[in-house]
Amino acid sequence: MPVITLTTDFGSLYPAALKAVILGIEPGAQIVDITHSIAHADIRAGAFAMYTVVDYFPKGTVHVAVVDPGVGTERNSIVISSGGQFFVGPDNGLMIPAALKLGDIQVYKITNTELLGDVSSTFHGRDIFARIGAHLLGDMMPDDVGEKTEGYVNMDFGAVDAIGNSVSGEVIYVDDFGNIITNISGKLILDRIGFGEKLNVSGTKIPFMQTYGFVNKGELLSLIGSHGFFEIAVNLGSAASELGIKNGDKINILIP
Amino acid sequence: MPVITLTTDFGSLYPAALKAVILGIEPGAQIVDITHSIAHADIRAGAFAMYTVVDYFPKGTVHVAVVDPGVGTERNSIVISSGGQFFVGPDNGLMIPAALKLGDIQVYKITNTELLGDVSSTFHGRDIFARIGAHLLGDMMPDDVGEKTEGYVNMDFGAVDAIGNSVSGEVIYVDDFGNIITNISGKLILDRIGFGEKLNVSGTKIPFMQTYGFVNKGELLSLIGSHGFFEIAVNLGSAASELGIKNGDKINILIP
Amino acid sequence: MPVITLTTDFGSLYPAALKAVILGIEPGAQIVDITHSIAHADIRAGAFAMYTVVDYFPKGTVHVAVVDPGVGTERNSIVISSGGQFFVGPDNGLMIPAALKLGDIQVYKITNTELLGDVSSTFHGRDIFARIGAHLLGDMMPDDVGEKTEGYVNMDFGAVDAIGNSVSGEVIYVDDFGNIITNISGKLILDRIGFGEKLNVSGTKIPFMQTYGFVNKGELLSLIGSHGFFEIAVNLGSAASELGIKNGDKINILIP
Repeated sequence: MPVITLTTDFGSLYPAALKAVILGIEPGAQIVDITHSIAHADIRAGAFAMYTVVDYFPKGTVHVAVVDPGVGTERNSIVISSGGQFFVGPDNGLMIPAALKLGDIQVYKITNTELLGDVSSTFHGRDIFARIGAHLLGDMMPDDVGEKTEGYVNMDFGAVDAIGNSVSGEVIYVDDFGNIITNISGKLILDRIGFGEKLNVSGTKIPFMQTYGFVNKGELLSLIGSHGFFEIAVNLGSAASELGIKNGDKINILIP
Repeated sequence: MPVITLTTDFGSLYPAALKAVILGIEPGAQIVDITHSIAHADIRAGAFAMYTVVDYFPKGTVHVAVVDPGVGTERNSIVISSGGQFFVGPDNGLMIPAALKLGDIQVYKITNTELLGDVSSTFHGRDIFARIGAHLLGDMMPDDVGEKTEGYVNMDFGAVDAIGNSVSGEVIYVDDFGNIITNISGKLILDRIGFGEKLNVSGTKIPFMQTYGFVNKGELLSLIGSHGFFEIAVNLGSAASELGIKNGDKINILIP
Repeated sequence: MPVITLTTDFGSLYPAALKAVILGIEPGAQIVDITHSIAHADIRAGAFAMYTVVDYFPKGTVHVAVVDPGVGTERNSIVISSGGQFFVGPDNGLMIPAALKLGDIQVYKITNTELLGDVSSTFHGRDIFARIGAHLLGDMMPDDVGEKTEGYVNMDFGAVDAIGNSVSGEVIYVDDFGNIITNISGKLILDRIGFGEKLNVSGTKIPFMQTYGFVNKGELLSLIGSHGFFEIAVNLGSAASELGIKNGDKINILIP
């Protein structure tokens, strides 16, 4: 019962075309939606979504990823193999952080067009990635899609600077609760402050706590999120609305 | 092919982590999303969602429920066994109405930490409930998680008063059509009025009908919803917008 | 591993009741959500959603469709057989375009109430369509539900007029990106203009391109969508917001 996941910015409807293609090739596939709510063309948010769940999936899982503003242009299509899992999608950095989280990565450029049928200019998710993904669930090996390459597009979650008691980074994801997730490792903060103390985030004093319910309803807190990153939240509220902070914003932390 | 359901207030993304954990333990699981759109921390709305569908699921189904404002605090984690189905989630009342709908309930406090790996302070859905749920699909019995308890948090859908031709209760759910679902049993109204007659809901005269299409487009009606509760709707419109009524509001019905 | 799809305007929660019923009858079913985000009672948008993905599903797939403003009134319930796939839902035209895309259609009126349990007045998706759909995954044949009929409700995507260099039609779907999908076949436009040239859409000059990334960010383009219809889009933006165009609006195209 092989597992195949989907991560897209499609919203509704179009994911069903990917599922139809997959089930036509591999009828017993276990299809898991990671999310289809990535903001339109926000490659880094898509990368974060995959990064945060990838290591919970069993070996052999195939991840199909389609946040793909360059569809139909010159950008390549790739397969990545890492830690016994596989990734298929556009060569735009989207799958790199999740793949690297699992270990060393091998990247293959999809050039073997015999595997594909008609390919539209606007929907490679359906015509290339779902199809290749389904074949990877079966007997196909990553190097059957084409040659290994070192010339792929890289991506990370941006620079983090830690100088003494000052740490700066940026927001990489705002979740559906309005929690603000930064690219700063929770450990980096925990090395500098104890739970229950306050730190200063871009001018606002915010307590650093173990979990949401340790402050009163409506109060700001900061914590190490379940993904391991430093996160800013409001208990039973939305920190993003409260602070007017959005994806991509810089975050400066001063620890007293 | 055992069935496991998920009911959360997560929105997008985080449910995938639960699914990954479940499939790592029980690769053949049939995973069904009940909903991930419960309003943030609205335990009663989550309870209603589970209540309205639970009796349609086959025996052996495991329900994982995570509307959990107290995650990481002192609140307990529990397993409930009822009518051949199982429930796992926080001890905050969330699963009680659905479990009671199936018959007598047995509640077990999760204390056997050998079943778990690392447990974060903020994501028990992933680290406890999904894991225990997957094991309940297999050979594990409810009392393997810990001792039976009578000291769990109870919950119901609130008081309904029926005095003569006056019935009062409250709104427990507003669905995605804007239909207003109350805690008043449809039968209670049907005992007092015939279809086609009008009743007075908090000052507004509204016909009581069998189904939506029996009034014109845009007109208010009341009916017995598919869940068995008294419901107020607008044919092809939103009663919640029309009347400005929301979850938790009191409803007073006068029957002429 | 038989495939059964769901297309509804339910939003969240109610689809789970259909899934519970299906899994009670056919525990190994592969359930695929096509979409549950069809605008309330927009039968044509539901028809488009099914139309655009149906031919990617394998033979034997059963499609359950519930955009059903007439639930509980006099409207019939039907099963359609076409091209080795099956459809079950209300007799309101919803399933016709998708079924016709697969070939000649056979329509059967559901009259055999022995197949059903209690039927509510407001939720035939759960009480009739999911149940019949699950049985169609098994041994049941379409004519087991009732007699074949020619008296069903027809539907198409509306008239398209092409006179010389003037083509007119209407908007049948606005997708989650804000792309405007018309009922005009892409081929009809491609016969009249080359890629890279501009056409005039209801007064606005818009280039006709192969894919989104061939114009700059924020710029309008027109193209043949992945569904084969003429589509108007904004690269990395929403054409529907930009042009103030919505489902059902007329579109007039002048080709220079």
